[in-house]
Amino acid sequence: MAKQDRAIRTRQAILEAAATVFDERGYEAAKLTDILQLAQVTKGALYFHFDSKEDLAHAVIDAQVSTAPMPMPQVSKMQEFVDIGMVFAHRLTHDGLLRGSVRLTLDQGGHELNRSGPYREWTELNLRVLNEAKECGELLPHADPQEVAPLVVGSYAGLNLMTQALGSNRSEMDRWASALYRHILPSIAVPAVLAMLDMEPGRGARALEAAGAAEAAAG
Amino acid sequence: MAKQDRAIRTRQAILEAAATVFDERGYEAAKLTDILQLAQVTKGALYFHFDSKEDLAHAVIDAQVSTAPMPMPQVSKMQEFVDIGMVFAHRLTHDGLLRGSVRLTLDQGGHELNRSGPYREWTELNLRVLNEAKECGELLPHADPQEVAPLVVGSYAGLNLMTQALGSNRSEMDRWASALYRHILPSIAVPAVLAMLDMEPGRGARALEAAGAAEAAAG
Repeated sequence: MAKQDRAIRTRQAILEAAATVFDERGYEAAKLTDILQLAQVTKGALYFHFDSKEDLAHAVIDAQVSTAPMPMPQVSKMQEFVDIGMVFAHRLTHDGLLRGSVRLTLDQGGHELNRSGPYREWTELNLRVLNEAKECGELLPHADPQEVAPLVVGSYAGLNLMTQALGSNRSEMDRWASALYRHILPSIAVPAVLAMLDMEPGRGARALEAAGAAEAAAG
Repeated sequence: MAKQDRAIRTRQAILEAAATVFDERGYEAAKLTDILQLAQVTKGALYFHFDSKEDLAHAVIDAQVSTAPMPMPQVSKMQEFVDIGMVFAHRLTHDGLLRGSVRLTLDQGGHELNRSGPYREWTELNLRVLNEAKECGELLPHADPQEVAPLVVGSYAGLNLMTQALGSNRSEMDRWASALYRHILPSIAVPAVLAMLDMEPGRGARALEAAGAAEAAAG
């Protein structure tokens, strides 16, 4: 058991080190030796968990959605929809694994990497919540979740890329995610729901804080 | 004069060949020999016009905005705003220079390239038209051109990137640009203007056709 725990910790350390190196250098320029040094593991340990740099990169990409702490269910499904992006923006400021994963997803080079996963998975997640919102009567009649989900995922990715191209701080995404929701939601949410939503910068931190407080109260 | 004409044509041939190679391979993997072969020019000719691969890449990036045929002025400034993106989406289907430029702009690798130019220039262009729309009373009182211009530019870039990551056809951008405008404009344009706008797929081709017809009639 202790041995298994250690293996899990080692795998996680390698993943996080790889994410940091991928984030700084990009996929092509990243070197396994730098990842080994940062994770303080041996080459044998790395190859026990991952077959290659490509395999490691795919694991980092996959971690983007699979390790995402989901925001607390809200009375309003549209608030849950907004929270997906606002919590993500908040996590970008401090989660190295997420940052490395985003960098790999947004890269176009290195044709051996399949980057479609996060686009598809985030779209599915957004689609699920939007469909629930539609069932609850929170969407305007013409709003089409099938169109809105990928629209938001693609737009979000581009705003992330633009902040990087302009050399802006990662924390800028909080402001841009807020701007995106504030400009798109009036065209899809019913006014009574819209008026109740928190789409302001800082929403990600507030949502996670509320979730933490609720968990503590539940004991 | 004939000599100068030939130099201009050679430069353009090199630019277009470079854009094609950059689009297919990305910046790092693109080789000058492939560009020379495609453009059918000598190494000397290339170095007469461009100092290096980097210099050539920057010229391709710069061509994105500088060679853009501007859509015809419209009665509605918001239609002009929409046309910027819809014409761009249409051009992506057949303009190799534009495609190569977009590929370089959206890449994150190759740190020696400065990719901020097109983001800044497209934002400036959109901002100018949005400010005119505001002066004409086409925008809702709370609409902020300073926020909307970069929001649209970043979102647009991301939708472009997503269609590429998902392996979609370049023509998909027509549909996504339309979706972006149809979802953002209701929150910034006054209803009377909104009702008159053409934001449907195919708008780029229609706008260019109208501009061509007007030019022929004037000519």
